[in-house]
Amino acid sequence: MASRASEFDLIARIRARIAARSDVIVGIGDDAAILSVPPGRQLVVAMDTLNIGVHFPADTAPADIGWKALAVNLSDLAAMAATPVWCTLSLSLPQPDAAWIDGFLDGFLALAARHRVALVGGDTTRGPLSVCVTAHGLLDPRGALLRSGARVDDDVWVTGTLGDAAVALRQWQAGGEIDPVLRARLDRPTPRVAAGLALAGIAHACIDVSDGLLADLGHVCRASRVGAQIDVDALPASAALQTSFDVTARRELQASGGDDYELCFTAPKTARLTVADAMDACDVPAARIGRITADAGKVSLHDAAGAAWSPTRTGYVHFEG
Amino acid sequence: MASRASEFDLIARIRARIAARSDVIVGIGDDAAILSVPPGRQLVVAMDTLNIGVHFPADTAPADIGWKALAVNLSDLAAMAATPVWCTLSLSLPQPDAAWIDGFLDGFLALAARHRVALVGGDTTRGPLSVCVTAHGLLDPRGALLRSGARVDDDVWVTGTLGDAAVALRQWQAGGEIDPVLRARLDRPTPRVAAGLALAGIAHACIDVSDGLLADLGHVCRASRVGAQIDVDALPASAALQTSFDVTARRELQASGGDDYELCFTAPKTARLTVADAMDACDVPAARIGRITADAGKVSLHDAAGAAWSPTRTGYVHFEG
Repeated sequence: MASRASEFDLIARIRARIAARSDVIVGIGDDAAILSVPPGRQLVVAMDTLNIGVHFPADTAPADIGWKALAVNLSDLAAMAATPVWCTLSLSLPQPDAAWIDGFLDGFLALAARHRVALVGGDTTRGPLSVCVTAHGLLDPRGALLRSGARVDDDVWVTGTLGDAAVALRQWQAGGEIDPVLRARLDRPTPRVAAGLALAGIAHACIDVSDGLLADLGHVCRASRVGAQIDVDALPASAALQTSFDVTARRELQASGGDDYELCFTAPKTARLTVADAMDACDVPAARIGRITADAGKVSLHDAAGAAWSPTRTGYVHFEG
Repeated sequence: MASRASEFDLIARIRARIAARSDVIVGIGDDAAILSVPPGRQLVVAMDTLNIGVHFPADTAPADIGWKALAVNLSDLAAMAATPVWCTLSLSLPQPDAAWIDGFLDGFLALAARHRVALVGGDTTRGPLSVCVTAHGLLDPRGALLRSGARVDDDVWVTGTLGDAAVALRQWQAGGEIDPVLRARLDRPTPRVAAGLALAGIAHACIDVSDGLLADLGHVCRASRVGAQIDVDALPASAALQTSFDVTARRELQASGGDDYELCFTAPKTARLTVADAMDACDVPAARIGRITADAGKVSLHDAAGAAWSPTRTGYVHFEG
């Protein structure tokens, strides 16, 4: 049952639950937030919006929407090797609903607390359900990970597993039952913050996998003016994916499915042990899936036997739906 | 006629038109922007969303939507005495439409260029038309203008004129013809950036008038634990407002109407000449409209003869509609 509340009640509800940080000079409650950036650090800013029916199913739990809205932004910061510090939130709701807001904040603030991110401002407005978050991070300028740093003969790596969220998404799009383990991967992605930070100074290039491995690796290749060769049988797959799909379907889901929010990065061959140790230290699995080539802009795939392989689609493009 | 474009085309369209700033280390095109904050400056962050049918009429020109989406955020920075520097933009559109985007950018980037604000990131998504902007400013910590700084016996001032946007909004809500001069005030508000900066070190408290004078002055009074007495006949009115409304209607529109994006500020009596000179120097009219009292939380109104006056409503509250 929805209870009605004014914008100021909503803001009071939010203010009552947020964590303090000493670098927040003025937080929620003035015309804007005032924040203190430490000397020697650069500011990193990411902004992503989730719309109902486009980025999450209409029956998604409010707590999952809250978690994911922050997670996709922290994932962008992770891909730059930035430490997340502050965020702002703009929430459009068809009507005020205190129970919905409380649920949303449960998820949003649980992830914020995990990374000591302070919610410092934003607004609440009336409109179709939409969540826009701007996340701010701090960066050691010597360690920034860009899309443009990949070099020929680099290894290509990916964290975690690929394809789980895509399966959940397709099960949802097909109107069927969604595997709860896979749905958790879709609804509650884990931003690889510690992994991104650990890769600073080791990796040459990095991106988070939101549009699908091939699409996102394509962005890295274009930005770096290189190509890539990927072994589709080396793509890390969850047990759920391995047991539920034949090899062709699995490859397709892993190469092209979006919403994984894993990190795809390149690093020199000589750094293999360093990468493995860095990933071990933050307890994040990482797999070598291919190498960077001089064939600018081209991402080619092969199977474990070396035979060429092509997917039927190369990633999620907004506005296709 | 709408032409279709992918997200990457839209981003390319946007990238091609944005101004460079030397403090933008990485702008649009990576996972996040990297920005350089100069030593000794604090970061100021504002975030506001405009939704179709809620914050602007459905027939608003794309260029006006673009202008206003940035203007309402720069207005928040102005109210803190911050210099605007960067912004991010999240644009939700029902379908990609290159002509619409170009029009939107005409307005957005015209205002951005006026204030040397660089668009450094964001995203484009599919969804009902909604524009979310996060604006970043830099602040001399000694000059920050907060809502909480008003002191008893301060003068209360307001820039520009009040009530014009409210008239246009009501004409729109009534479905009638909208006066073009007033509609321009609604669609193309002028963020008082220079005035805000000029008031640093002079004014005690400041807010921008977005929800209506009484509502916004109420925020200042609550934050400062003071009250205010306002002379409703001293509220600055445009010629259009003076000629079209009787005195009661005019007072009502000026006291309660939102969307003016003027600055309401308090300053010591001893600073009257300093305030007038500072406003003259940036060519912004400002009027003294009342004084701060010890009657905490209470904003009372009187007419030029000293008789008490009350409006029938006290401001725009989101989610009432």
